[in-house]
Amino acid sequence: MTDMNQQWILKQRPKAQPTMEDLQLVETPVPAPAEGEFLARTVYLSLDPAQRISMSDRTQYSLPVEVGAVMRGFSLSQIVESCTPDFAVGDFIRAPGGWRTHWTGVAGDKVSLDIAPLEDHMSLLGVTGSTAYFGLLENGAPQVGETVVVSAAAGAVGSIAGQIAKIKGCRVVGIAGSDEKCRHVVEALGFDACVNYKSGAFSADLAEACPDGIDVYFENVGGEVLDIILTLMNNHGRIPICGLISTYNRTEPLPGPYNFDHILMKRLIVRGFLIGDYFHRMGESVAQLAQWKSEGRIVSNVHIVEGGIAKAMDALSMLFTGANTGKVLLKVSEP
Amino acid sequence: MTDMNQQWILKQRPKAQPTMEDLQLVETPVPAPAEGEFLARTVYLSLDPAQRISMSDRTQYSLPVEVGAVMRGFSLSQIVESCTPDFAVGDFIRAPGGWRTHWTGVAGDKVSLDIAPLEDHMSLLGVTGSTAYFGLLENGAPQVGETVVVSAAAGAVGSIAGQIAKIKGCRVVGIAGSDEKCRHVVEALGFDACVNYKSGAFSADLAEACPDGIDVYFENVGGEVLDIILTLMNNHGRIPICGLISTYNRTEPLPGPYNFDHILMKRLIVRGFLIGDYFHRMGESVAQLAQWKSEGRIVSNVHIVEGGIAKAMDALSMLFTGANTGKVLLKVSEP
Repeated sequence: MTDMNQQWILKQRPKAQPTMEDLQLVETPVPAPAEGEFLARTVYLSLDPAQRISMSDRTQYSLPVEVGAVMRGFSLSQIVESCTPDFAVGDFIRAPGGWRTHWTGVAGDKVSLDIAPLEDHMSLLGVTGSTAYFGLLENGAPQVGETVVVSAAAGAVGSIAGQIAKIKGCRVVGIAGSDEKCRHVVEALGFDACVNYKSGAFSADLAEACPDGIDVYFENVGGEVLDIILTLMNNHGRIPICGLISTYNRTEPLPGPYNFDHILMKRLIVRGFLIGDYFHRMGESVAQLAQWKSEGRIVSNVHIVEGGIAKAMDALSMLFTGANTGKVLLKVSEP
Repeated sequence: MTDMNQQWILKQRPKAQPTMEDLQLVETPVPAPAEGEFLARTVYLSLDPAQRISMSDRTQYSLPVEVGAVMRGFSLSQIVESCTPDFAVGDFIRAPGGWRTHWTGVAGDKVSLDIAPLEDHMSLLGVTGSTAYFGLLENGAPQVGETVVVSAAAGAVGSIAGQIAKIKGCRVVGIAGSDEKCRHVVEALGFDACVNYKSGAFSADLAEACPDGIDVYFENVGGEVLDIILTLMNNHGRIPICGLISTYNRTEPLPGPYNFDHILMKRLIVRGFLIGDYFHRMGESVAQLAQWKSEGRIVSNVHIVEGGIAKAMDALSMLFTGANTGKVLLKVSEP
């Protein structure tokens, strides 16, 4: 443990892919907790596409990160000093601690190593797993025998959404950005098929993998993939929108899907969702996901980046280049 | 009654706005009903945007009209000869009779002049009214005090959808294509406000008319209007899509809304619907609409075109030029 607190500050709003011009790593003394507060040391920082959104001033879930403020982000932290009876030194908590090595606060979800390793609490049993759970089940309503397609299938949320759809008795087809990822999605995650959207024959490959059309499309990417999906959707299909990552680094307005009219003709339900709307129900999702894990029916899929807080920008950029397989966690310190 | 049957045949698929090159009015002898059939004479032909879609071979609700076949369309007809005990000469029926003066068939919904005038059975108490009813209530779920915006507010379905939203206790704002239509929408139909999308200040006018944002947008038009709407939608808003008429005469692929990402950020539900999916429930909608009408809480809004079946193309084109106010019915013969 260093004596200094390292924090990533938003210097300016990125124009496209964020660069080191846009953020700055600054050092300040580690803060002392006030009465009623704790001091926490970040162990794992979660890297999420929504963080790119919060760097911008576009319309978004909530307020953007202010220029000059610490970057927002969920983390798993350990209490190192406590001035509150609610948290003891050594406790692990999940909270929006931000991109920094230390932080003071009053609230967090305690997690227990007795239930699962720390990484699981930041992936399958964390916000990521619950995003997949509520996004798919509440917004996609998959039925036994239906075909469910998941984009970014090797990614944090997609890898879990597809596994849940398998448990629910669906034919599950993934979309990923390399043959290697597709193999992983089928062999390690148990999807029925996976199609490489960079193959050059994506449209035909997807149609072949979905001989009965598509009933549910779990959307993580947007752009051309969505347009092709719309041509294959069945009547009364559902499209929960979890993310549109292909559009987050845009530098000018991007057209929506050219096949938007398929929403009408096929009577589709297209629905954006946000895990924040389900936080009050996470007890339900986490308990179910933990049970499936204990039964060996679902696996965690984590991509840990080493190198400490200095590597936060590199870790975030992996989400946009597709360099990761699974949930990206930056290891900030040893627990 | 003439001795000949006049029928509109689809000669070729229109490239843009349908012209007289695309359809042909042909005369054949009036058919004789076979055993079990009736012969019906068309009184009112309904003109609907979906008819333009069915002339094309694009992805659509069901199969396109085949080239060489009679144009599809709902009509109100009178039985003039009957070889079935189910229908008596003089009965009025609502059925997909097509663009022709006479037709033989076995089925149709009988309508009674005791309940309402014939025109009402083809508008407020017909498929049009039920489209507004189920589209708004089942897909828009408007709540008391919410703001509901309806495009094509002076049109067949929009005029009814807005009146239903008023009955449900919403602030209702229409969108129409002229100041005269907007006056009609406010003064005759009772909307709280109506904005002319051709005014040049549409975006600002709409924002001013919706000081609390938009909770439900009943979509009939698509295109730029939808993009502006998306910027004003509130979190958890609903967008039932009834039609996208601005796109039906397109000659090349059209981009979807540039603000498609608002669906995600605001967790909107965008949902296409088709009245055909609710035909089995039309008893419910027609009874409710008739009751509201008898209580003076909702008015019919019909635009009758004279001139007989020869005017079918002119009547259809009104939907695309906006020349109509209310449901367009072509009077094909006297009842």
